Amino acid sequence: MINVGIVGGTGYTGVELLRLLCKHPQAKVSVITSRAEAGIPVSDLYPNLRGHVDLCFSEPDVEALGKCDVVFFATPHGVAQNLMPALMATGTRVIDLSADFRIRDAELWAHWYDQAHGCPELISEAVYGLPENNRAAIKSARLVACPGCYPTAAQLGLLPLLENELVDPTGLIISAASGASGAGRQAKVGMLLTENSGSFKAYGVSGHRHLPEIEQALHDAQPAAAVPAAVTFVPHLLPMVRGIHVTSYARALNPDTLPDLQRVFEERYVDEPFVDVLPEGQVPETRSVKGSNMCRISVCQPQGRDTIVILSVIDNLTKGASGQAIQNMNIMFGFEESAGLDVVALLP
Amino acid sequence: MINVGIVGGTGYTGVELLRLLCKHPQAKVSVITSRAEAGIPVSDLYPNLRGHVDLCFSEPDVEALGKCDVVFFATPHGVAQNLMPALMATGTRVIDLSADFRIRDAELWAHWYDQAHGCPELISEAVYGLPENNRAAIKSARLVACPGCYPTAAQLGLLPLLENELVDPTGLIISAASGASGAGRQAKVGMLLTENSGSFKAYGVSGHRHLPEIEQALHDAQPAAAVPAAVTFVPHLLPMVRGIHVTSYARALNPDTLPDLQRVFEERYVDEPFVDVLPEGQVPETRSVKGSNMCRISVCQPQGRDTIVILSVIDNLTKGASGQAIQNMNIMFGFEESAGLDVVALLP
Amino acid sequence: MINVGIVGGTGYTGVELLRLLCKHPQAKVSVITSRAEAGIPVSDLYPNLRGHVDLCFSEPDVEALGKCDVVFFATPHGVAQNLMPALMATGTRVIDLSADFRIRDAELWAHWYDQAHGCPELISEAVYGLPENNRAAIKSARLVACPGCYPTAAQLGLLPLLENELVDPTGLIISAASGASGAGRQAKVGMLLTENSGSFKAYGVSGHRHLPEIEQALHDAQPAAAVPAAVTFVPHLLPMVRGIHVTSYARALNPDTLPDLQRVFEERYVDEPFVDVLPEGQVPETRSVKGSNMCRISVCQPQGRDTIVILSVIDNLTKGASGQAIQNMNIMFGFEESAGLDVVALLP
Amino acid sequence: MINVGIVGGTGYTGVELLRLLCKHPQAKVSVITSRAEAGIPVSDLYPNLRGHVDLCFSEPDVEALGKCDVVFFATPHGVAQNLMPALMATGTRVIDLSADFRIRDAELWAHWYDQAHGCPELISEAVYGLPENNRAAIKSARLVACPGCYPTAAQLGLLPLLENELVDPTGLIISAASGASGAGRQAKVGMLLTENSGSFKAYGVSGHRHLPEIEQALHDAQPAAAVPAAVTFVPHLLPMVRGIHVTSYARALNPDTLPDLQRVFEERYVDEPFVDVLPEGQVPETRSVKGSNMCRISVCQPQGRDTIVILSVIDNLTKGASGQAIQNMNIMFGFEESAGLDVVALLP
Repeated sequence: MINVGIVGGTGYTGVELLRLLCKHPQAKVSVITSRAEAGIPVSDLYPNLRGHVDLCFSEPDVEALGKCDVVFFATPHGVAQNLMPALMATGTRVIDLSADFRIRDAELWAHWYDQAHGCPELISEAVYGLPENNRAAIKSARLVACPGCYPTAAQLGLLPLLENELVDPTGLIISAASGASGAGRQAKVGMLLTENSGSFKAYGVSGHRHLPEIEQALHDAQPAAAVPAAVTFVPHLLPMVRGIHVTSYARALNPDTLPDLQRVFEERYVDEPFVDVLPEGQVPETRSVKGSNMCRISVCQPQGRDTIVILSVIDNLTKGASGQAIQNMNIMFGFEESAGLDVVALLP
Repeated sequence: MINVGIVGGTGYTGVELLRLLCKHPQAKVSVITSRAEAGIPVSDLYPNLRGHVDLCFSEPDVEALGKCDVVFFATPHGVAQNLMPALMATGTRVIDLSADFRIRDAELWAHWYDQAHGCPELISEAVYGLPENNRAAIKSARLVACPGCYPTAAQLGLLPLLENELVDPTGLIISAASGASGAGRQAKVGMLLTENSGSFKAYGVSGHRHLPEIEQALHDAQPAAAVPAAVTFVPHLLPMVRGIHVTSYARALNPDTLPDLQRVFEERYVDEPFVDVLPEGQVPETRSVKGSNMCRISVCQPQGRDTIVILSVIDNLTKGASGQAIQNMNIMFGFEESAGLDVVALLP
Repeated sequence: MINVGIVGGTGYTGVELLRLLCKHPQAKVSVITSRAEAGIPVSDLYPNLRGHVDLCFSEPDVEALGKCDVVFFATPHGVAQNLMPALMATGTRVIDLSADFRIRDAELWAHWYDQAHGCPELISEAVYGLPENNRAAIKSARLVACPGCYPTAAQLGLLPLLENELVDPTGLIISAASGASGAGRQAKVGMLLTENSGSFKAYGVSGHRHLPEIEQALHDAQPAAAVPAAVTFVPHLLPMVRGIHVTSYARALNPDTLPDLQRVFEERYVDEPFVDVLPEGQVPETRSVKGSNMCRISVCQPQGRDTIVILSVIDNLTKGASGQAIQNMNIMFGFEESAGLDVVALLP
Repeated sequence: MINVGIVGGTGYTGVELLRLLCKHPQAKVSVITSRAEAGIPVSDLYPNLRGHVDLCFSEPDVEALGKCDVVFFATPHGVAQNLMPALMATGTRVIDLSADFRIRDAELWAHWYDQAHGCPELISEAVYGLPENNRAAIKSARLVACPGCYPTAAQLGLLPLLENELVDPTGLIISAASGASGAGRQAKVGMLLTENSGSFKAYGVSGHRHLPEIEQALHDAQPAAAVPAAVTFVPHLLPMVRGIHVTSYARALNPDTLPDLQRVFEERYVDEPFVDVLPEGQVPETRSVKGSNMCRISVCQPQGRDTIVILSVIDNLTKGASGQAIQNMNIMFGFEESAGLDVVALLP
């Protein structure tokens, strides 16, 4: 049984970590911090945890966190990078759910996040935590940077095509939609039920912070990586709580010699516990992964034309954040990869 | 490990039984029947079960069901009663989620369900499956009649008051609201998303079939049971999927000598694994029990007047149906009562 | 064509006033104030008004407002009472949508609103703006206090019973539910889509500010008014935007000589343009009044017992606020009462 | 005042026609047919129309319809084409909201709709009813084929680019999403609230019937029309009632000499009463057009790269169906084009 610390436990990724970890057979949360709620029982904020979690929030404290075997950061960007040097000096391993260590180029990070990076010296040590692509490196990592929610769903949908050099990496279209929990638990007029229920819109069209992460990852995925991936990424806001749906459009490089795409996808993910390639002709619904760590994927080639369509769904709080973070923890500590994550999606 | 059969597995209580039982440590579903879907994999109908349940639906068959240790009926009313004599002759134990054996008076049943009862001779053997009130009888029962969803939430809210003769049983008001999954998975215009999303209404005002069940149970709950309980019950339809919220209003018999109600409730349920009396001043939200078997309850006495208000919430598919059915199974087979049911509600 | 001013136009009652008034044949909004948004076009905040409203928000200014024929206050409580003396000195007529002048007893107001009343001297001049009960007084009023949303729906449902002394006024139960727009356009965590979508709860159980308003009005409605009305009022929050549904429970005083209730209701409202008594056996849905100024009502007596159930629905922003305010304006200025309000509810 | 007939008035486009026409200053619905509901008052089916519409449904009858000045078909495909010859022989003008006369090539129609066309001889007479592109022909048309909902939103977004030959017509991506009312008022399990609330999915990925209509229209829009437009069209189902959102992706032909796109769009639509090009940097929300006949559009070029993104929203039942049909009627009869359609969207 390992000891787990959580920094920033009052947001939705924090409560999702608790929901899953409180039933994990080999991990126990012993510290959960929140400056604003210090002293308050966790279950006062999240009544679903009454009877399951007895902890109170505490002030962030490097010494207490350093005694944990692993610390999760469930904080907005900018927080983890400032605590990281002191925390890693304690020898604890860290899984960062925020964006702080996802981008390898500190200047690119600074450009998109509009602030200098507070800890550029540790960026190179950070391992990108997409198990389906990086399992070996995660196993021995001291610091794992968990992928963003959109990048997770987008990559799992596009990796088989890019790894096999089947599509033009310079004209990728990623049309994505997320439930409102992706925006976190902040008091903003724009995220009120009254402002979003029964409505749908795009946002961040001129540039969303997940774009450079997606392009970096898709570039890496190509064998030769000669051509930088160029992505047009448009996220949309769904009038619902959980779920990401990504519809990707990619142009086949050699339409006439394209292999059986269904088989390409099935073979790519045959051993993956959390990627489910649907039978031909079925499409994934976000509700089929609600509360679970699964990603479900379909691929098709409408009218046999050159444009390939890939549909991928995840729960943004689970495979898109806290579930994937625990999957990374399981890999790092040699646990069964699905320990604590063998959850059936809640349907209906 | 016991073998479980499910009759009528294509509805929402069927898929909910599967969601929970496929992770149960001591029970395994070996047969699931559906005339309409015989031969089809369960996971084709319910994609959340892909990777968790490998069964196909089969034709209902008493011989195959009779080999099970226990059989659940997740069927509309009228089905269980016809299969029951043959099935019980095999010696298997039965847990009926339908309304067939809830009402002790066959004529009253016939009046409310508008058909003669098909198996009146077995009604007296049926044990009413509300564990919080009837645990001992359930333990040895051959046939358990699981309570309806509204009656479960209503009883748990009112039992402490009636058992202690604190309120007038003849003027009870039960104002309740349910998510749309309570209406089942039937193709009806009235249950389309377009007909209910963003709207709210009462239904069954002139008489809902759960009324006689509620009155029978509340009558039984009184020590002397001299006065028949008389309830005004108005259910409403919520624009959401899961959850029942019951607001009960009861008039204190002796307002001046009323004991501390918070304490009455806490003491009544102190040992119950699935009833949570909230701290004074908190109110229950249906989302705090979504997908869990918990009932959360508040009691208060607005302005210190004579009318007591009790708020109780459950997930209609879990504590209101399939979860409670499994709780009954656990009691019947001597398992830990919360085996397979130790699930945290999905929030947000 | 009269000139209209609106104080506090950035909230939902403000935009609802604009939606309706911009098509009104005899009224034109010439001033709309907002300290926070002064200088900003109204349609930047509310894109549905693009092409319909050309105004910009301006700083509140008594001189500019005083030039209007009528001024609406669409502000939180506490604002209108402070501006009122100066504004009324200009001779303009005022329609206050806030709670400031609804309660006749300034001390009772201070108790429930937790602050001293800023303008007690004008309370007695305020006319309570429920046209169905007070049309003559409204016609000549200089200051109209529009009823709250819950009180409007509750009164319209109960007036016929109380006016005819058919029910016990001391044991009324009002179980009500509102869409989230009733909470206004404030940035609060508790009103996020993620906190309310797919969930339902009660709130304000120990005492909601609409309670004293309801009791005052129901007391007034009785011919003799000997017995103070005593109400248990429990509001609930619906996971949707617009709509109030009130389920009222009242005990018949003389069950054996109760007149035909359907007829009592139909006769009471036969000449009312905005009250629709549904045919016997039908129940009102909130969507049937979405965006309209209509109140739809059903009455029934389940199982012929002593408890009468009344169901009434309104759109909380229209008949519950801005629509009713315009109805009052029409009465005050001698316009057709339904001018600008002859809108069909948006269904589906 | 002209007389209007409606064939097939029980669906959502039927009730939307009634909502708008009952307030139209120059048109009056005198006949509304429904085989299934003949004899029933319209307002029994649609309670929002109580007090506004007094009609009963009647059996379809060519003689009665033929006395109308104009007849709307609000029927599933396949119905209008069979009644059309007899009806047009009466001399009445017809506006068909169904798909029967949208496609000029009867064989293409037969391929996509999986049945032979019942009235190929009248196809050439049908005028495609997109006023923004075809106003003159509509004016004198005897038979107008109203565009589909997706095609309306897609065309309005792409016309300015194709008319000016700014983008490659062979690689267009149209990623679209619709509220559930687009599926009509049919009792289907897949359209239940329980199956769609809180979830999102694509559908018709391998080929949706609106694809050939979109391709035909976009082909026509090009000046030379040398290159057939090739579109990848993926519709998605939103967990809400009304609204279509189309996100189109088009590759610039000459990125270096691209004109100011904002200006291209503004100039294209400067005189259009129902197309609103949003200011640069704003994105359209579906709620900003709920219940209105407006289409709101944004165009942008993320990161200044070659891919242009166009966002367009309509209400699928209004500008996507019944509102546009009335707009066509207004043009045909020389009324003000916005007569009866000057409605502000319902927000919030």
